[in-house]
Amino acid sequence: MTVLANGWVKKVSVTPPSLKDNTADADRLENALKAVLNAEIADIDLTISGILPELLRKNDFNLRCILFKDHKKWCLAGITGDDDKIVAGLAVDLGTTTVVLRLLDLSTGLALAESSFINTQISIGPDILTRLHFAEKEEGLCELNRLIIEGLNRAIAELCKSCKIEPSDIYLLSVAGNTSMIHLFLGLNPRWIIREPYIPVINRPGCLNARELGINANQFAKAFVFPNTGSYFGGDLIAGILYSGLNRDEKTAILVDVGTNAEVVLGNKNWLVACAGAAGPALEGGVTKMGMMAGPGVIDRVYADPETGLFSVGTIEGLPPRGICGSGVIDLAAALFLSGMIDIRGKFVPEACKTRLKDKDGLKHFVLVPANASAEGIELSISQADIDSLIRSKAAMYTILETISSYVGISLSELSTFYVAGTFGSLINPRSAITIGMMPDLPEGTYKSIGNSSLEGAAMILKDCRLMDEIDAIRNSITYIELNVNQDFMNRFSAARFIPHTNLSLFPSVSSDGLVKSRDSDGKVKSSLCKAHES
Amino acid sequence: MTVLANGWVKKVSVTPPSLKDNTADADRLENALKAVLNAEIADIDLTISGILPELLRKNDFNLRCILFKDHKKWCLAGITGDDDKIVAGLAVDLGTTTVVLRLLDLSTGLALAESSFINTQISIGPDILTRLHFAEKEEGLCELNRLIIEGLNRAIAELCKSCKIEPSDIYLLSVAGNTSMIHLFLGLNPRWIIREPYIPVINRPGCLNARELGINANQFAKAFVFPNTGSYFGGDLIAGILYSGLNRDEKTAILVDVGTNAEVVLGNKNWLVACAGAAGPALEGGVTKMGMMAGPGVIDRVYADPETGLFSVGTIEGLPPRGICGSGVIDLAAALFLSGMIDIRGKFVPEACKTRLKDKDGLKHFVLVPANASAEGIELSISQADIDSLIRSKAAMYTILETISSYVGISLSELSTFYVAGTFGSLINPRSAITIGMMPDLPEGTYKSIGNSSLEGAAMILKDCRLMDEIDAIRNSITYIELNVNQDFMNRFSAARFIPHTNLSLFPSVSSDGLVKSRDSDGKVKSSLCKAHES
Repeated sequence: MTVLANGWVKKVSVTPPSLKDNTADADRLENALKAVLNAEIADIDLTISGILPELLRKNDFNLRCILFKDHKKWCLAGITGDDDKIVAGLAVDLGTTTVVLRLLDLSTGLALAESSFINTQISIGPDILTRLHFAEKEEGLCELNRLIIEGLNRAIAELCKSCKIEPSDIYLLSVAGNTSMIHLFLGLNPRWIIREPYIPVINRPGCLNARELGINANQFAKAFVFPNTGSYFGGDLIAGILYSGLNRDEKTAILVDVGTNAEVVLGNKNWLVACAGAAGPALEGGVTKMGMMAGPGVIDRVYADPETGLFSVGTIEGLPPRGICGSGVIDLAAALFLSGMIDIRGKFVPEACKTRLKDKDGLKHFVLVPANASAEGIELSISQADIDSLIRSKAAMYTILETISSYVGISLSELSTFYVAGTFGSLINPRSAITIGMMPDLPEGTYKSIGNSSLEGAAMILKDCRLMDEIDAIRNSITYIELNVNQDFMNRFSAARFIPHTNLSLFPSVSSDGLVKSRDSDGKVKSSLCKAHES
Repeated sequence: MTVLANGWVKKVSVTPPSLKDNTADADRLENALKAVLNAEIADIDLTISGILPELLRKNDFNLRCILFKDHKKWCLAGITGDDDKIVAGLAVDLGTTTVVLRLLDLSTGLALAESSFINTQISIGPDILTRLHFAEKEEGLCELNRLIIEGLNRAIAELCKSCKIEPSDIYLLSVAGNTSMIHLFLGLNPRWIIREPYIPVINRPGCLNARELGINANQFAKAFVFPNTGSYFGGDLIAGILYSGLNRDEKTAILVDVGTNAEVVLGNKNWLVACAGAAGPALEGGVTKMGMMAGPGVIDRVYADPETGLFSVGTIEGLPPRGICGSGVIDLAAALFLSGMIDIRGKFVPEACKTRLKDKDGLKHFVLVPANASAEGIELSISQADIDSLIRSKAAMYTILETISSYVGISLSELSTFYVAGTFGSLINPRSAITIGMMPDLPEGTYKSIGNSSLEGAAMILKDCRLMDEIDAIRNSITYIELNVNQDFMNRFSAARFIPHTNLSLFPSVSSDGLVKSRDSDGKVKSSLCKAHES
């Protein structure tokens, strides 16, 4: 069986010992590895040394070694006989809401299976801040740590079962997550993450023993945890940068993760500048209040015919609607604005909304789906408060983009590519996001949805040993701007609290009367919306 | 409180974080340490990172850091507040028979207390070979490992209690032992140590986590285990070399450990050649059969008046005699030879021994202490078989010395210093050892007894951080000769089976008629013997 040239699995032939060469087995293996790698190797773990003598002699001194590299030094994560048994790796995107796992064959680099589960810490609180506060209670941190580790172990067991392998066949793990989640995963107290000046315990967790973390994998398995660049710019983003290739491109591009937080990195092969929107109002709060997470039957698309004023919705898997997710809300807000049903401040216009506008508990609601058309017989509506919340969120998003670009003295219009990462991000219709002024008015082709870039980045390093150094390079080249202390922020934020913006010249494709003048086509508004959805 | 300049405890002031500097606490400490040490530092353990944020903030960002260095890279073994609490280190000589511990204050380098215990594995077998065979039984290795770890933990608890500190105040351990004992201590299977070509699992155990080894010390404590140069030349000898200074001297000297095994190293600052006598008959077997270990009431000195033929004995602590230890047996054999009571083959001469010679179970016995003069009312005697055994052992010892010196093309007479290490070695009267031809005929001032050099070497590195590199240098500069395959060995051995030797010119100070012609004095034989004892 051949193995990937730049993978982590290396075939090694160890020189058998003789009376003339009484070097210990562990040192003998170390010497053989040095020759194969042409590099120094860290001390071999005592536990690996323990099984080495028998394994060497049973396999005529030919082994497969599973290696890893941390801070430029190779280390040994496992040894097996030279046979066809699968040697697996596990990439993990440790999201606040959803945890995604991908199992790979480390010898071939091929994916074996993928699964996801709702973060088991949801039982403590859906948002990270609730969990961080809970962590300060007695045994709170232990409980949060136990929840995520148990959740992972259950998912690992199921994933392995589906591939007919054992957790003990997993030798490498690559874990990317935001700084807070990583702290909870590692059992580190996040107390100072949420207090000025927002200091994490650790920036570079590096390469750890999976067993010591409580993870059910091979007893020698190493878990690489992506480094962070501060409390609000986590390893998930570093993994995302790696996957996007932002750090390898001559041209300046931007990567925006609009998941449960708003994190942004701008740069090229020479420099990277990053910031995150956790400090100000971000999309997270607004979106979760008015809707639900993407899933079957959830509205992720809203179409409006500005001529007839009729709305239609698209749901995930085409099931009867039972709620609305973030991308649906952005579509809806864009449609409401284009139809004149909300004004530039995002306030409902009763004359335009007509009978669709209802009063509930003293708050105006716009009915999107009547009770008889919904999955559960309940009217689906969006309140003025929901829209207000979205406006704050989109304003925060745009302000972050403006702040970071002005920091480096570049105009958003100069960006070669606008990478949109995250599950939520991948559902967003860029046209709608431009319409409400959440994202800059760039040609639609500039937008590239890259999906779960955190998972993809985590998976990448399991396939190519040359990328480890790149991760350090990315981390070290990032200049992180703390938005909390940026004086321009609040001024920009106020200007961005209009649809699309106080300064309309920033959004030439969005006319002041609410009609889309698409750069790509001069067709009808409806076709423009549809086209964007189909793309 | 000031700390040793080259000790392992360093005072470190960490820059407090600010909004302008959001580096994580662990990275902040790492940077501070790099500046203090002017060197790279290994990743800080996750568990240390875990307690770091609170400790930093409680101590105004001033800490005492307990460091260690392994393979030229510094690592952190613990952190405490900047106060006067004792930070302790523990040096361990892990002997096959006796385990000796010395507790030190790492800040000052001063010894706090010392204790020893009979190796708890004695219950399995007094000799190492019995234990190594036992290790191959089911659970045998676990049992042996459990025994030594439990023994150590008991001793650590008592030692700490005597100094009014806690085991958790111990941050560094330095452990020296023979290769087999170290394998059992680390739970590594010694199976291939006792099978040709005699390969240990590990040469350089390096710096391990004490807790992972089961040792009751601080949760972060590091245990440095001295490296070995093969199955029969262990870390106890490397520690001994370090203590003797053999590796720093211009002149060529020799270090001989005549403990439970016969290990020899010859060299100077430029080279070191080593060998060990486990393969041939060594002192161990002979000595343990006929006597007992040194202890109160044990005969460690024998005097004979060659004119009157009268014997007198010296015992440890001057108590009535209850047995004889190795050094006493060597004295006795020398006295018997000088009195003409044994011949050059070591056979009893009945005409000279007269009534002191008795037949027991068909074997000739020489009565040293009559029943009425002994502690337990039992006649103390030495049999022909015991003498034969000693002759084999002394021949092996001398052969090893000859073999190693001829290997490097040097005469034993050229040696500047003859270091004798080990508890047994420290009791040997060099004059007697020369008389029976066990050690070369050098001026008595050449012999230097250095006691438990393994413990002393282990303690040295706890006091001076500059010595770690020297240990690697010693190990790397040793050329180990495997005696088993040396063709000259058996020829030399046969020639050495006479008293003092077949080639009398090698022992000019020992006359062929059994009378001592001391190089240092031309006085009477008796005074010569006494003088040697008093020195």
